[in-house]
Amino acid sequence: MAVQPVRISGLYTDFYELSMAQGYFYAGKQKEKAVFDYFFRTNPYQGGFLVFAGLADFLEQLQSFRYDTEAILYLKKLGLKQEFLDYLIGFSFKGKVLSVREGELVFPNEPIVRIEADLIEAQLIETMLLNILNFQSLIATKAFRVKLAANGKLFTDFGLRRSHGFGGLQASRAAIIGGAASTSNVQAGFMYDLPVSGTMAHSWIQSFESELVAFRTYAQINPKNSVLLVDTYDTLRSGVPNAIIVAKEMALNGDSLIAIRLDSGDLAYLSKKARKLLDKEGLSEVKIFVSNQLNEHVIKSLEDQGAPIDGFGIGTELVTGKPDASLDGVYKLCSSAGKPSMKISENIEKNTLPGMKMVWRFFDEEDNIFRDGILLEEEIPGDCQWLHHPTQPDKKTQVCKLKREQLLQPVYENGEVCHPMPSPATCHEYLTMRSAQLPEEHKRFIMPHIFKVGISEKLLNLRNDLVKRYKESYE
Amino acid sequence: MAVQPVRISGLYTDFYELSMAQGYFYAGKQKEKAVFDYFFRTNPYQGGFLVFAGLADFLEQLQSFRYDTEAILYLKKLGLKQEFLDYLIGFSFKGKVLSVREGELVFPNEPIVRIEADLIEAQLIETMLLNILNFQSLIATKAFRVKLAANGKLFTDFGLRRSHGFGGLQASRAAIIGGAASTSNVQAGFMYDLPVSGTMAHSWIQSFESELVAFRTYAQINPKNSVLLVDTYDTLRSGVPNAIIVAKEMALNGDSLIAIRLDSGDLAYLSKKARKLLDKEGLSEVKIFVSNQLNEHVIKSLEDQGAPIDGFGIGTELVTGKPDASLDGVYKLCSSAGKPSMKISENIEKNTLPGMKMVWRFFDEEDNIFRDGILLEEEIPGDCQWLHHPTQPDKKTQVCKLKREQLLQPVYENGEVCHPMPSPATCHEYLTMRSAQLPEEHKRFIMPHIFKVGISEKLLNLRNDLVKRYKESYE
Repeated sequence: MAVQPVRISGLYTDFYELSMAQGYFYAGKQKEKAVFDYFFRTNPYQGGFLVFAGLADFLEQLQSFRYDTEAILYLKKLGLKQEFLDYLIGFSFKGKVLSVREGELVFPNEPIVRIEADLIEAQLIETMLLNILNFQSLIATKAFRVKLAANGKLFTDFGLRRSHGFGGLQASRAAIIGGAASTSNVQAGFMYDLPVSGTMAHSWIQSFESELVAFRTYAQINPKNSVLLVDTYDTLRSGVPNAIIVAKEMALNGDSLIAIRLDSGDLAYLSKKARKLLDKEGLSEVKIFVSNQLNEHVIKSLEDQGAPIDGFGIGTELVTGKPDASLDGVYKLCSSAGKPSMKISENIEKNTLPGMKMVWRFFDEEDNIFRDGILLEEEIPGDCQWLHHPTQPDKKTQVCKLKREQLLQPVYENGEVCHPMPSPATCHEYLTMRSAQLPEEHKRFIMPHIFKVGISEKLLNLRNDLVKRYKESYE
Repeated sequence: MAVQPVRISGLYTDFYELSMAQGYFYAGKQKEKAVFDYFFRTNPYQGGFLVFAGLADFLEQLQSFRYDTEAILYLKKLGLKQEFLDYLIGFSFKGKVLSVREGELVFPNEPIVRIEADLIEAQLIETMLLNILNFQSLIATKAFRVKLAANGKLFTDFGLRRSHGFGGLQASRAAIIGGAASTSNVQAGFMYDLPVSGTMAHSWIQSFESELVAFRTYAQINPKNSVLLVDTYDTLRSGVPNAIIVAKEMALNGDSLIAIRLDSGDLAYLSKKARKLLDKEGLSEVKIFVSNQLNEHVIKSLEDQGAPIDGFGIGTELVTGKPDASLDGVYKLCSSAGKPSMKISENIEKNTLPGMKMVWRFFDEEDNIFRDGILLEEEIPGDCQWLHHPTQPDKKTQVCKLKREQLLQPVYENGEVCHPMPSPATCHEYLTMRSAQLPEEHKRFIMPHIFKVGISEKLLNLRNDLVKRYKESYE
């Protein structure tokens, strides 16, 4: 009972997916083939990239995306018709999924995941796909930004209490992909095999007659892994002095206090003062951890101020992806019954890219990521390949004789995952490698340099033709 | 398999709760009694209130908060000790929970939930309690703000695709408590018995050879409940004219088109134009629904502009609680081994309130909510009761001869829920009733009038005594 992974069913969807699926069924479209792209339009946090995450989770849920008797009865109650319900009883996703790797750095407008399936299948899984990928990518990106700010120092996810209900399980997974060293979230640790850590809260200290007794008792029970929280009453006048007494007592037994934790007040000021107090007592090996409403900007500021901090605990901002709180990822039909399809918007930036496509990544002579190009599936980039700006097509670049790589790989086929799904920690290793290939100016926090994603001339022409044809139909 | 409710276990916690619990165990504190308060410090969205939600979910999870063999093995791997693990095998929460009702309007610093239990029990459930109550209260509050803006018009939750993973299930529940008329989220509808609704997306239209055929086919399959999405190609030149054709065809069969939906562009402008086009064709009964990045402020602006809109679909901002994305609810020890306890902060606003307490609500002669007062549990408010400002105690009011009510009621005792848990829709009815008792100036969006919560003189004195005693201990 207790520790099973959270499982969702075919009911994990917006009702309109079911009402459209029923419509396709009665319109005789149940065998029609469709291709959908998953992509996003705006980098989160006014940053220069997205870290893609959530793939392994999505594919696992895809395998159990079914309708059992209870679900069917419920859908009947919601008004769906018997013939269609009979179809749903036998439903499972039999299509194909192509995707970039978890931990990949990706950019606006390029297909990150491509779904090829019967129209009904592709439609029914839309909401679930968006729900899982949007959120985990948002959080992995936040975590990686924190890592970029933290100057090689470790940080831990503390966020379960402020995360969005059961979404906290997935937040912790994504935080590890993005670079957290560990999480406080035990159930996520169990489900996803994540490193888990944590020591004490204020209530521990309050429950003893004095702070000193509380620290001493904790250290006696945990001689190898004590981190003492020093701000319950007064950080510099009570907490740090008491921690020093206990650290010296531990030393007498051959143990050592790992760290103190500051959780309120001005962390730059307090960490400097605490460092001096510890050093003066010969406790320079005792580390200083800090927490309290941290994010990448606060951490960068602490680092800029030379605060002698050894590690960070991050809760709310990490697991909620503040201030964005959501990624604008969408799932759009690009091919229907073998024909390219697109959505037209008043706003040219929101026109979608029609047809089945591949994303190619081009690297410069130093193996840095130089450009991404979106080409039609059947195109192979030439030795010299023109890439057009997607919305201002007169702007174009030619990439010549550059190393190139296809980003989308088959990951699910014939009802099964067909590509190894690395652990969250391994996804982070991949991200680290990729990040080393991405020039720094795309990674800065303030007005990052925009990474250029271009489209091929064939794709541009296809889109122009379709727009023209649609406009003619009602003008 | 498919449609079970999501269940969490005793692993759904921060690791430090377990490491402290083990510490209490070895420190001989496993039978020590503790009282914790759940409260928050700042109203979300710069508003004047919080709608409390999540109680029934929390209590349900509390009943299944256990450790099975697999969980115990995992905790052993994390380094917990055998004697303590033996204790955990038999663990279940045996304490008492008092709470305000779901849908209650509550205010900063007052205890909303009170936990009385063995220290270990109360500690282990902390993270789970905060995770569930913080999030659902955040979302219920957002939903109620949307309702306040919507001038009696209906709105629907569309947010599953942008919600935080599995937290989307709880978001939809909370949205209904706050006032959404329905949700698109089918699994949440199933789990929590919520009204479900939805019709079509752009992909439906794109999958047909023309918009007109797409509309006509949908209307034929769904003659009683068609809402046509009119912005796939061009709202006023293609979408609305095609919807009019289909609406007239439906009328010939004695059916009628329920509504059109606008999902992009300027919704005030487009709704006015669309309304005219529909009315000119005698289709004044066809409603106009709108969606696209709505929140309470956009809706208020649309209403102020007199946009002829009949209903709203709200996704991202509703289910993520933007821009806050989290509620700062905390869980603090207020009594330990029968003695009052508190946490002291550099910042007097963050000092907690010691001792076991009751929240009393006072009503004026017109039955409006006038003041909340926090008193010690053993106090009964007198005919005239002094209430002090919690952080500026010289400010005080006397409430005389007012009707009063105790807000905290026992809801869980002896391992069981001991108070009826109303459905989300019934919680919303309660909220509606309560809201009618709260003066309008606390509900406005811009600089709302601060609702006053006072503390009794006995509680004030107790806090002052404790602060003095702590300070003496290290000065």
